[in-house]
Amino acid sequence: MRAEVINTGSELLLGQVVNTHLAYLGEQLFTLGFRIGRQLAIPDGAEILQALEESFGRKPDVLFVTGGLGPTTDDITRDLLADWLGVKLILHPESLRLIEERFARRGFVMNERIARQAYVPEGVQPMLNDWGTAPGLYLPAGEKWPATFFLPGPPRELRPMFRERVTPLLRDLFPVAGDVQCQVYRVVGLGESMVEERVGARLLALPGLELGYCARSGEVDLRVVGGVDTIALAGAIIEEALAANIYARNEGTMEQSVVELLRGKKRTLATAESCTGGFLAHRITNVPGASEIFPAGFVSYANAIKTSELGVDPALLAEHGAVSEAVAGAMAAGARGQTGTDYALSTTGIAGPGGGSPEKPVGTVFIGLATSGEVSVSKHFFPTDRETFKYLVSQTALNRLREALLENG
Amino acid sequence: MRAEVINTGSELLLGQVVNTHLAYLGEQLFTLGFRIGRQLAIPDGAEILQALEESFGRKPDVLFVTGGLGPTTDDITRDLLADWLGVKLILHPESLRLIEERFARRGFVMNERIARQAYVPEGVQPMLNDWGTAPGLYLPAGEKWPATFFLPGPPRELRPMFRERVTPLLRDLFPVAGDVQCQVYRVVGLGESMVEERVGARLLALPGLELGYCARSGEVDLRVVGGVDTIALAGAIIEEALAANIYARNEGTMEQSVVELLRGKKRTLATAESCTGGFLAHRITNVPGASEIFPAGFVSYANAIKTSELGVDPALLAEHGAVSEAVAGAMAAGARGQTGTDYALSTTGIAGPGGGSPEKPVGTVFIGLATSGEVSVSKHFFPTDRETFKYLVSQTALNRLREALLENG
Repeated sequence: MRAEVINTGSELLLGQVVNTHLAYLGEQLFTLGFRIGRQLAIPDGAEILQALEESFGRKPDVLFVTGGLGPTTDDITRDLLADWLGVKLILHPESLRLIEERFARRGFVMNERIARQAYVPEGVQPMLNDWGTAPGLYLPAGEKWPATFFLPGPPRELRPMFRERVTPLLRDLFPVAGDVQCQVYRVVGLGESMVEERVGARLLALPGLELGYCARSGEVDLRVVGGVDTIALAGAIIEEALAANIYARNEGTMEQSVVELLRGKKRTLATAESCTGGFLAHRITNVPGASEIFPAGFVSYANAIKTSELGVDPALLAEHGAVSEAVAGAMAAGARGQTGTDYALSTTGIAGPGGGSPEKPVGTVFIGLATSGEVSVSKHFFPTDRETFKYLVSQTALNRLREALLENG
Repeated sequence: MRAEVINTGSELLLGQVVNTHLAYLGEQLFTLGFRIGRQLAIPDGAEILQALEESFGRKPDVLFVTGGLGPTTDDITRDLLADWLGVKLILHPESLRLIEERFARRGFVMNERIARQAYVPEGVQPMLNDWGTAPGLYLPAGEKWPATFFLPGPPRELRPMFRERVTPLLRDLFPVAGDVQCQVYRVVGLGESMVEERVGARLLALPGLELGYCARSGEVDLRVVGGVDTIALAGAIIEEALAANIYARNEGTMEQSVVELLRGKKRTLATAESCTGGFLAHRITNVPGASEIFPAGFVSYANAIKTSELGVDPALLAEHGAVSEAVAGAMAAGARGQTGTDYALSTTGIAGPGGGSPEKPVGTVFIGLATSGEVSVSKHFFPTDRETFKYLVSQTALNRLREALLENG
């Protein structure tokens, strides 16, 4: 089944907001048997009509339109749709009641603009919004258009609306969902072309298999799409050839893999972060249930804190500097000793943009791993922007722990 | 000037990767006098030709195409473009040399697929890629097409390529950059319709002003676009009516505002996080120069760590539980005492999905703020997913500190 998506919103095109709707809808729709064939982003305003007509002309099975349903003057999708259909806007009392209740609960005062959101073009079905004010709209398929869903733009409304309102309607409309499967292997430590060299020829020899690569910082996602049997054959080839370089599958993340390994082996972890500034702890605690294996993290940005909280010898700091193998090791050992965990990871480096020197340029980083037996430190060089640096350092640190857990248990 | 963007990549439509190119290009192009009128995402493969022809037909001033230039079998933009132009692919020796050097430096072995990336359609100018392997392509404007730039898909390559390669070319091609300005006000503590009630009518009365609202979790972005004088008038209205509810402007963030206020007043901050798990420290340390004002953060996930590292009385934990006003206050006071900072923020709550109870359901959170004079705790309820919860709690915590800094200094 083929879906299309139209995102309205000048803020998307001006670069002020990242469009996360496409990724969300793509993932959700795939599991319902749909693939998005096209996605278009256009400014707020009248261009939506042209975009709708173009999409209708390509005859997708279903169309999603996001944004433009709110209370402000740039939200005109509802009015344009009524005009285009040649119908009136009609008050939907249940939607008005929900909006009034929401405002009363928050102690806000209703106004005329807010109430306007409860009006719906005649013949279009409102979808109640329990997560915001603007109801969604469902335009059933007609001679000239496919089933079309209009959803509010804020992600915290769009996502539950899709799950609770759209999904049941889609299941009714398209009861036979796809037999095509998609499997993603997330690979670390090998470049895109090395991954293709190891598995490409054998995978392309499988009839009907669609193959895709997506290179990200230090990683490659390998995606296979096909029938159930083909996917199983492809999976066997990939798992054998890439083995421990696969750190996660499908929606899995590095931090999930690490937390699962720790839970499975009943081991615990502490973190001692300097240059990653809490991002490593943040990633670990994004995994539900992380509290079982992660009692404590330290963000020791200042040298005095490295000493007072982690017991790093001031002489080490004076002799080697905070960004050094010796201090990375002492931070990891200190965090492990202080908290009594099985493992501790430490990071110390120069995230930039300032703070670099000829000997230790921006991007230099030491990662420490303390276990019961030893403390080991690795040195890396990631000259990039501050946030990518934090990501690469945390990813490398987590992968070191993952490999240690796979080796030793 | 009008730009269009075509993003190729099946992974974008399958929902496996969030498309960050649009936001990046939109922001960069705006400062160069361009606005993106349309953005289209399509799968890898032959559909790129149809998308190019459609875009050419709308006659934008410039067109950007991302992805499809890499070494793997799904990267066919280069070949399709040569076919469409009716020209041959020609080896670009300088690109080949760069790729070979890159591989030698990393100790990787070159193969034929890698070398393929150094071939360029005749008449198209390669743009050297110092950040990855595939060069970009610049197709100068012709009778049937505008200036068209093909850029590699990985963001860590696309961004420096745009900055170092595309920007100088654009400045040459379009020397007169726009006189239109864009200003964004980031507002907290007021709903979208309340913002419009306070400023909407007065702003819409300004001739030529374009006005947009974008509601996010607990916040609204107010965007005004127009000539320099109009923007100044709009700014005066907005600053007066929304005052301290404006926490940042344009690309500014809450964490930047807080770090700037602390630096300006020469004050320091520590964090003691439970439910935000390091995210608060991460946001603060994303701001370059944060080390001046942020010596230390604690992630005290386990109760024992709240006691051993922050000095929270075990009796308080036993009597009130970790998620309580008393413990939030003790965590903030403990972090401040332990590190000697002027301020400390603490968070303790139930991020979910597990751990809720009838008295303290998932989403319950206490935020503590310790200053020299007092410790104050506020209670909030954010029933949402785990990552949004962390964002809302950290945003609320940072805003409380921002307000305290504005009031007391």
